[in-house]
Amino acid sequence: MNEPRGRLEDGVVRVAGDARQRYYDSRGYGRPVEGNEIALAPVEAAHLLSRGDLRVGDLDFPAFVRRMADPTFLVRFLVYADLRERGFYLSPAREGWVPDPSEGAHFVVYERGSGPWDDDRLYELRVAGERESLPVADLEGSIAVVDEESEVTYFEVGRPAVEGTSTGFSGSTEADLLADRAVAWDPPEALFSEGFYGQPLAGRESGADGPIQLSLVEAAYLADRGSLSIDDGVLDRGRAVEGERFDRRLAVYAALRERGVVPKTGFKFGADFRVYADVDSVDELGHSESLVRVLRPDHVSSPRELALDVRLAHGVRKRMVFALTDANDGTEPAWISVGRLTP
Amino acid sequence: MNEPRGRLEDGVVRVAGDARQRYYDSRGYGRPVEGNEIALAPVEAAHLLSRGDLRVGDLDFPAFVRRMADPTFLVRFLVYADLRERGFYLSPAREGWVPDPSEGAHFVVYERGSGPWDDDRLYELRVAGERESLPVADLEGSIAVVDEESEVTYFEVGRPAVEGTSTGFSGSTEADLLADRAVAWDPPEALFSEGFYGQPLAGRESGADGPIQLSLVEAAYLADRGSLSIDDGVLDRGRAVEGERFDRRLAVYAALRERGVVPKTGFKFGADFRVYADVDSVDELGHSESLVRVLRPDHVSSPRELALDVRLAHGVRKRMVFALTDANDGTEPAWISVGRLTP
Repeated sequence: MNEPRGRLEDGVVRVAGDARQRYYDSRGYGRPVEGNEIALAPVEAAHLLSRGDLRVGDLDFPAFVRRMADPTFLVRFLVYADLRERGFYLSPAREGWVPDPSEGAHFVVYERGSGPWDDDRLYELRVAGERESLPVADLEGSIAVVDEESEVTYFEVGRPAVEGTSTGFSGSTEADLLADRAVAWDPPEALFSEGFYGQPLAGRESGADGPIQLSLVEAAYLADRGSLSIDDGVLDRGRAVEGERFDRRLAVYAALRERGVVPKTGFKFGADFRVYADVDSVDELGHSESLVRVLRPDHVSSPRELALDVRLAHGVRKRMVFALTDANDGTEPAWISVGRLTP
Repeated sequence: MNEPRGRLEDGVVRVAGDARQRYYDSRGYGRPVEGNEIALAPVEAAHLLSRGDLRVGDLDFPAFVRRMADPTFLVRFLVYADLRERGFYLSPAREGWVPDPSEGAHFVVYERGSGPWDDDRLYELRVAGERESLPVADLEGSIAVVDEESEVTYFEVGRPAVEGTSTGFSGSTEADLLADRAVAWDPPEALFSEGFYGQPLAGRESGADGPIQLSLVEAAYLADRGSLSIDDGVLDRGRAVEGERFDRRLAVYAALRERGVVPKTGFKFGADFRVYADVDSVDELGHSESLVRVLRPDHVSSPRELALDVRLAHGVRKRMVFALTDANDGTEPAWISVGRLTP
């Protein structure tokens, strides 16, 4: 083989000769240093090595990989190779390679057809191993997770606008507290049909003019607003059956309602709530757009948990939104969405 | 109204007159006692009360429900009403109502068109509230979970046969242990293409004749069988990155392989493994039929967790199988499947 040779110096691979044209100008590897010489980050050099397009000293690909002491090297290489295989150019997010790299990012991925010359960024990407801890409050941007078998999954984090046009229920009624739920025996029809509170006790077919069963969180919210007369013990009952989680769920429930969004139980989806943004009537609900999972502000997730939630939401054509709240500090929950990114 | 009156005695409602014809013979409520008199269990009586077809003393439906002190009464009523609404007859699983009721069951549900007269059972059903604890090892039969908004979800528990025809890899090779994975730089093609061990390091397109990356669990299993030369530290490395969970996952991985089934990571699905029963060649994998979640033998699940897993598996057309193992006692894992039941 006649491939060019680079030399490993201070953690980067320098290649002279026609390297600038051969690797940078035509294929987006590395960064120019002087004349036609370029510097390659280790992942870039490894990718060229793996393809037989470069040698580094007397190291071949296996020897080069063994030489890299950083335990995250291999996962970063796998992401680099995956995006290359998908036809993207990308650069390490480090000084010299890209202007103003974001803290925490590992790569800058360019728009299709673009490269390091024009810095036309599609997104910045953080790489995480399958077993890393991810504090949910700190999630941002795009994340690539490499699983134990080296498959790469891409996530996109957002700060969603949570708002709707539902007006709720402005009347008032009374209910009995019965074990872990409440029953309004004779409520105004609007409680269910316009406010979308509760469920007809005897099934949907029985309609909105019979008894309506309310969840404890619905009952506690309505009671707090003065729209429901019920035993004072409703909050304590909620805490008795759910613990302090009840307060967090109630805080998120209230925040959603105040924003004109109707939360209903997300039980069938393993989430806290599914939400409807524009409920005028229960007969025209439309599709629920999001699932909401209530978490503590300091909740630490794992890539596996994220993958589960994102897969779940995607499977039912919804968006997964995390609501982070302390329940007792009276501040608005932090809303964070995580979705699948398909490069 | 002219509806018949029953009397509440010793926790059951007795109705005389033409009750046997009116309720039992024609609509499957209650059990005959003497002559034309029948006994109704409270859920049966409540259902008739809710429809205006019965009074009990001077109690109407709300008053009757308030009178029932058992906190599980309402959830049992909701399941009874839901199945009735779906067109099934069902009886409380108690002595006198049905012969030989199973312990733990709440209802016997009859085949469509059948009823308590012929005891043609479709299944026995256990009712659980959304917040109950469910030890996975004890799950069996059919389970109805009532969520906080009184919607009912039905699950079916099975003891699946776990077996396949894959023969694996009978050769041997060597690999480097690199951080939290291993790389076989020059393995026989059969390692990947027939055994379906690992992934090509440089992506699928690079094919089976280049370096193959192995997960720690794959490497540990192959090393234990004598098919892989690798640093002795592979087990310790697994434990270092995953804790004792690694041993449980390895025990389940080995049990699946011994049964001719190929486990691959279930990461994208938030599970431990997805499995393939009949791998002859990676080019003709077919659809993976099941997801496997590894649990401790004493794992206590919640209906919400079950709902999440079942929804997830259903969304990707797979079966969810729990593998319960202690890892160290050398016994076969217990295999328990949970799926959605649509009455």
